[in-house]
Amino acid sequence: MIHLEEALGIILSKAETLPGERVEIPSSLERVLAEDVHADFDIPGFDRSAMDGYAVMARDTSSARSDRPLILEVIADLRAGYRTKKILREGKAVRIMTGALLPQGADAVVMVEDTKEEEDRVRIFRKVNPGENISFAGEDVKKGELVLKEGSLIRPAEVGMLAALGKEKVMVRKRPRVAIISTGDELIKVGDRLEEGRIYDSNSFALFSQVMKCGGIPQRLGIAPDKKEELILKIQEGLSFNVLLLSGGVSVGTYDLVKEAAEEAGVRILFWKVAVKPGKPTFFGIRDHTLVFGLPGYPVSSMLNFENLVKPAIYAMLGRKEKRIQVEAVMESSVRSKGRRRNFIRVKLVREKGEYRALPAPSQKSGVLKSMVFADGFIIVPEEIEEIKKGEKVQVQLLD
Amino acid sequence: MIHLEEALGIILSKAETLPGERVEIPSSLERVLAEDVHADFDIPGFDRSAMDGYAVMARDTSSARSDRPLILEVIADLRAGYRTKKILREGKAVRIMTGALLPQGADAVVMVEDTKEEEDRVRIFRKVNPGENISFAGEDVKKGELVLKEGSLIRPAEVGMLAALGKEKVMVRKRPRVAIISTGDELIKVGDRLEEGRIYDSNSFALFSQVMKCGGIPQRLGIAPDKKEELILKIQEGLSFNVLLLSGGVSVGTYDLVKEAAEEAGVRILFWKVAVKPGKPTFFGIRDHTLVFGLPGYPVSSMLNFENLVKPAIYAMLGRKEKRIQVEAVMESSVRSKGRRRNFIRVKLVREKGEYRALPAPSQKSGVLKSMVFADGFIIVPEEIEEIKKGEKVQVQLLD
Repeated sequence: MIHLEEALGIILSKAETLPGERVEIPSSLERVLAEDVHADFDIPGFDRSAMDGYAVMARDTSSARSDRPLILEVIADLRAGYRTKKILREGKAVRIMTGALLPQGADAVVMVEDTKEEEDRVRIFRKVNPGENISFAGEDVKKGELVLKEGSLIRPAEVGMLAALGKEKVMVRKRPRVAIISTGDELIKVGDRLEEGRIYDSNSFALFSQVMKCGGIPQRLGIAPDKKEELILKIQEGLSFNVLLLSGGVSVGTYDLVKEAAEEAGVRILFWKVAVKPGKPTFFGIRDHTLVFGLPGYPVSSMLNFENLVKPAIYAMLGRKEKRIQVEAVMESSVRSKGRRRNFIRVKLVREKGEYRALPAPSQKSGVLKSMVFADGFIIVPEEIEEIKKGEKVQVQLLD
Repeated sequence: MIHLEEALGIILSKAETLPGERVEIPSSLERVLAEDVHADFDIPGFDRSAMDGYAVMARDTSSARSDRPLILEVIADLRAGYRTKKILREGKAVRIMTGALLPQGADAVVMVEDTKEEEDRVRIFRKVNPGENISFAGEDVKKGELVLKEGSLIRPAEVGMLAALGKEKVMVRKRPRVAIISTGDELIKVGDRLEEGRIYDSNSFALFSQVMKCGGIPQRLGIAPDKKEELILKIQEGLSFNVLLLSGGVSVGTYDLVKEAAEEAGVRILFWKVAVKPGKPTFFGIRDHTLVFGLPGYPVSSMLNFENLVKPAIYAMLGRKEKRIQVEAVMESSVRSKGRRRNFIRVKLVREKGEYRALPAPSQKSGVLKSMVFADGFIIVPEEIEEIKKGEKVQVQLLD
C-alpha cells in the first residue's frame, strides 16, 4: 500500500504532454493553451476618447467653471472608427464619441455631461487635466507583451482576448483519448432487464462524464465479463488509447482478474493499493505510451480516485496548470475517520450567516453513489486524524 | 438609473422556463434536469457482501478468536452476479466475493483477511456481528425515493446515478438559443486588416463563450454598423432567437443608435442604465418571447453584465437553481470605489499560509480586458462603500 503522493508521483512521471493543434478561437473554449501568446500591436492601437464629449486642449479649460463656462468652437465631429485631418488648436474643440481616435492637438476630453452645445460652439463647465478621459494606446495590452501563457485554461475572457489580439486560430493541446471498460459478471447494460443479484453498470457513465469535464475524449468500450481471455481482448482494444480506465475486479478475490489480465496484455504494473479511503484497491501501469488505471468497482471509490489520480494525469497530458479552489467551512456534525489511510469525506456546502457549513453525506460508504450526488465537494482527512469534530474549520475541495 | 436587484427582478419576470427534451444520459452532462427522478427499485436490489470473505451465521462465530479459530465447512462459492440455491445452516460457510448476493441463512460476512482456507473448510479468526460486512438492499437508494430533483445541474455523479437507476434517457431543459450582434463602425472582423482608429470585435467571441459555459446555444450574427436601417435588419434577424445580445452603441452619444433601432424593430424597452460599475449603459427589453439585452461596448462591462444580468436569465430559462460559491479572501491592496453604483472589482486569488489573498487587477478600467484574463473572480462592492482597505476580509465571487 503506497501513499497518495507517491502514487501521484509515479503517475505524473509517466504522463507525457501531448502535442498541440491549431483550432479556431471559438472552439478553443475550455481547451489548454499550447503556446505563449504575445501581442502583435497595442490595444487599443491609438489614443482614444474614453467618453462621449469634446476633445480639447486641457490648458484652454483652466478657467472653465459651472457658473462661468468657457466657449469653444466645434470644428469637427468624430465617431468611433473614423478620423479627421483637422488639427485641434487653441479655442477649438472636436465633438468626440467614446472609442474614437483622439484628434491631433487634443490632450483631454470633457464629458458631454459637463458641456452644452449651441450650434457650432460648445460651453465647457468644468476644467479638465491633460490626459483626462483618454484611453491611451496600449492601455490594455502593449505590443510585444506576453498576454496569455502556455498551460492556461481558455475561458471566455481568454477567447475575447484572442479576438482582440486579432488571432483567428490558436494552438491548443490535443485532448487525450480515454477508453473506459467496466468489468464484472454482476453488471447489466443500461437498457437491459435487471436480474436478481445484478446491478446496472454506472461507473462507465460517471467516468465518461468525468473525462469529458476535465478535457479528455472518452469512449466507453462496454462491459467485460470476469473471464480472463475476454478481459485481455478488451484491454488490448483499450491500449490503443492514451489512457485506459478499468473499473472493478481489482481487489483480492479469486475472480479479481483485471490486474492479471492487464499484465498478460503487456501492461507493466507500477503500483497496486493506495492508502486512501475509499479507493484502496487501485492499480496503475503502463504499456508503451498508454496509462492504465485499474479503479475499484465501488462507484464512489471509482469517482474519487478519478479525481485524485486520473484527473491530474489528464491535466499533465494537457499541460494544464491546475488551480484547485478550496472553500473554508465549519463542520455541521462530527465524522470519524479510521486513520491509516487518507480519507475523503463528501460534504454539501450550505451558506449561513456569511459562512459555509459543511454537511457530511449521511452515508460515507463507498457503495453509496448518492453521497456523490449529495456533495459539493470533499474534505481531505490526513492519515493521522481519527475524527473531525462538529464546529471544526475545514477546507472543502470543490467537485466542480 | 435603476439598482441591480430591480433590473434583475424585471429580467426574471420575463424569462420563461423552456420546455424539456429527452436525451441519452451521456449527453445529459451539464444539462439541467426537467423532471424529478424517482427510483423504480432498490439499489442495491439485494443484500450483498461488502467484502471478499465468507458468508456465515454471525452467532456461529461468537467463540472465534485469533488463537482459537472456528472451523466451518465451505459449501459453496459465490461470485458477484451469481446466486446459489444452497441454504446456509449452522457450521457452514459460503465463500463470497464483494458485491455477491448473500446466500439464504447467512447474516454476516467474515473478511478474507480474518480467515484461512483449507480445502473445503475455513478457519475463522474473528467474531462477526449480525449485519457485519453486508450492504443491505436499498442501502444507496430506496425504491420510490426521489433521487434527483428537477432543476439540478447534471454532473458526473448524476449521470452515474441515472445509469444506476437503469435510465437510458432523461428529460432535460432545452437550451436557449442566443443571438449575438456586435455593433459599431470601429469594429473590424478578426481576420481582416486592422486600420488606425479601429479595433477587433472581441465582445461577440467573449459573449459566445459565456453563453456556451452557462448552457445556452450561441450564434454570432456578425457586426452591425452604426446605421439605423442596417441595425434594424440585424436586430430583426436576432429576434427569432430566445435571447438577443447586442453589444455597443447603448450610451448617450449621437451615434448610439442601438436602443432606438431595437425600439423600431418592435422591442419594448423595460429599463436603461443600471447602477453598476462597470456597465452602467445597459438596456433590457422584450419582443414577444425574446429577451433583448443592450450591453456596453467596453469588453469588461459586457462580460460582467453578462454574468450579473444575462446568466441569471439563461439559468431561469433552464429552470436551473443556481448555487454560486463564494471564497473568503484577504485584500492584498486597497481599492477605491466611487460609490453610488455597485462596483465589481476583478481579483486574482492566491493561496498563502492556508488562506486566500485577493489581488486586484492592476487596472480596473472597463476597457481593460486583461483585468478579466487576470481574474479568478470579483468582489461585489456595495453602493455605499467607497474603499476596500488592504487586509480587509472580502467575499470573492468565482468567475468559473
